[in-house]
Parts: sequence; C-alpha cells; structure tokens
Amino acid sequence: MPVIKIDMGLTSKEVKKELIEKVTKAMSETTNIPEQHFTVIISEGDADNFGVGGVQLSEMHK
Amino acid sequence: MPVIKIDMGLTSKEVKKELIEKVTKAMSETTNIPEQHFTVIISEGDADNFGVGGVQLSEMHK
Amino acid sequence: MPVIKIDMGLTSKEVKKELIEKVTKAMSETTNIPEQHFTVIISEGDADNFGVGGVQLSEMHK
Amino acid sequence: MPVIKIDMGLTSKEVKKELIEKVTKAMSETTNIPEQHFTVIISEGDADNFGVGGVQLSEMHK
Amino acid sequence: MPVIKIDMGLTSKEVKKELIEKVTKAMSETTNIPEQHFTVIISEGDADNFGVGGVQLSEMHK
Amino acid sequence: MPVIKIDMGLTSKEVKKELIEKVTKAMSETTNIPEQHFTVIISEGDADNFGVGGVQLSEMHK
Repeated sequence: MPVIKIDMGLTSKEVKKELIEKVTKAMSETTNIPEQHFTVIISEGDADNFGVGGVQLSEMHK
Repeated sequence: MPVIKIDMGLTSKEVKKELIEKVTKAMSETTNIPEQHFTVIISEGDADNFGVGGVQLSEMHK
Repeated sequence: MPVIKIDMGLTSKEVKKELIEKVTKAMSETTNIPEQHFTVIISEGDADNFGVGGVQLSEMHK
Repeated sequence: MPVIKIDMGLTSKEVKKELIEKVTKAMSETTNIPEQHFTVIISEGDADNFGVGGVQLSEMHK
Repeated sequence: MPVIKIDMGLTSKEVKKELIEKVTKAMSETTNIPEQHFTVIISEGDADNFGVGGVQLSEMHK
Repeated sequence: MPVIKIDMGLTSKEVKKELIEKVTKAMSETTNIPEQHFTVIISEGDADNFGVGGVQLSEMHK
C-alpha cells in the first residue's frame, strides 16, 4: 500500500528505472514491508514549473 | 470542496470524461455532498514513470 | 497501478469503506483495469484546512 | 520546507514565473518563514484532465 | 478549477485563514481567473514527518 | 528541488528518520543531485484511509 510520489525534472528511462528499484528497496528494508506492496509514481516537470525560494528554476540556470 | 486526484497511465479523452462523471457520482452518492462541490484531476504518466513492487511498469509489459 | 487520492473533510470509517469500494468499481468498469490494481488513499482534513474562493471552509459554516 | 503544489491548466512561462514569486511571497509574509525555505511545483494539465461537478472542463468550454 | 495543496508544519487557524486568502488572491491576480474557482488544501504534518537534505526536521531543531 | 511524498500507515519517529535518510540517499546517488536539494514529506494515514483492490485496509487485517 505505501505510495511514493516523486516530483522532479525531466529524467531518462534508465534513471527512472533505477530510482524505482532503489527507492522501493530503501522503503522495504526500513519498514519491513515486502517490496511488492510499494507503488512509485514519478511526476516529471519542466524547469519552468519549479520554484525554490521564490525563483523559477529555469531562471536560476540561465 | 473534495478533490480527487487520479494518477494513471495515458488515457483517451472519452475515458477521462467517463471517469470524471462516474467517480464524481460515486463520491456524491456515498457522501451526500452535491456533485457541484467535487473537483477531479487526472494526472497521466508514461509506463516508464510508474513502478510496482520495485519494477518499472514499462519493463513489466515487454 | 492507478492511485486515487481523495482530499476531503473528516469522514466516518463506514463512509470511507464505501468510498473505497465504489470509487474503485467506477474506475475499474470505466478503464477495464481489474480492481486489484487500484490503490485509494483518503486524506482527511479539518474545515480550517480547506479554502474555496479564498474563504476558509470553517468560516463559511459559521 | 513548506511545499506548494499547484494543479492548473496549461500556462505560459512568464505567468508561472510570476506565480512562483507571488505565492512564495504570500506564504512567507503570512508564516514569517523566510522565502528560501519554500518549494513551488506547478503541475499543468489539459482541459480534458480536469472535472468540476462531474463535467470535463473541455466539455464546458465547447 | 486550479487546486493548491500546501504541505507544511502545524499551523494556527488564523494563519491558515490568512494563507487561504492571500494565496488565492496572488493566484487570481496573476492568472486573471476569478477567486471563486480556486481550491486550497492545507496538509499539516509534524516535524518528524519532514526531511530536508536527508535530515528529519525534528532532529534539526534539537 | 526534487520532492518525495510518501503516503503510508502510522509509523514511529525512528522509522521515519531512517526513511528520510535512506530515500534521500537512494535518490541522490541515482540522480547525482546533491542530498541538500531533496525534500521528503511523509503523510501518515489510518488503515481506514487506505484501500487496495477496493477493500479497506482495516477490513483486510481483521
């Protein structure tokens, strides 16, 4: 049942594959809940869609 | 006021239209809150962006 | 894999039980995805924690 | 640490930039938490992906 | 339709009331969408439930 | 900037502390983004508030 939603920038298929494996492993080992019960959702966004400290991320990286 | 967010795979306009109708109806009938108070948000993602049991969905369907 | 997150006011166990059943059924029938693949998460909040049109819900119901 | 997630329709880079600035400012002034601690995430969706009162938004604007 | 979800620490009713007003106002002015279309959800959590840079917030404030 | 939201059952402070550390580490190693940029939010819920396959979790564990 635990659901992990990750909001992050645009990411390759391979990195997303590895994130799903490693985050699920970390969660399972720490909670002793078997891996099959975990769902991971990766929500990608453009740098225009994120702000930290009131500054749009795409503006930071100019 | 209730807000229903649905994270799912890529879905056609017609199916999304029907989901919005049926999920709102199910919520309204069960809670006795009139339908007009419900907001539904459908967040679609590619099969690369979902993992179940530590396995990337796009890898499962190979 | 589809995950449905419901943000709503404080709700009884029985109503939450029925919501889980009916929303899952509505989703499954509409998408032809078997019920066992659906996860529903109900996130309850106090009327102080919701605002519609800029007005705190607990203020509306005075 | 506060994280603000905004689900809305398709929006230009400039409007998103201004939203990040103004929402962070409003949050910081109200909570007295310095701006640098705030993260804003804007999740855009097509009008097909939103429903209000059981009606798909794209159907409303026909 | 736009929905704003705020994840933050435990907060008083008055501050939440002001947040709802000011964030809705900032969103409405920036997008030219009338205030009545906005929903704000505040999800409060204990300092144990937040981590920044891998450190639990409650551990930072010891 | 990446934000990780975890929806799960009621969990002790120590386990949450370890989850924050391990999930951040797994994310950082996989993406090569320094740990300080990651925010983790743990949203705990009662077994009444989760459903899998249309069944309320608290009903499963009777």
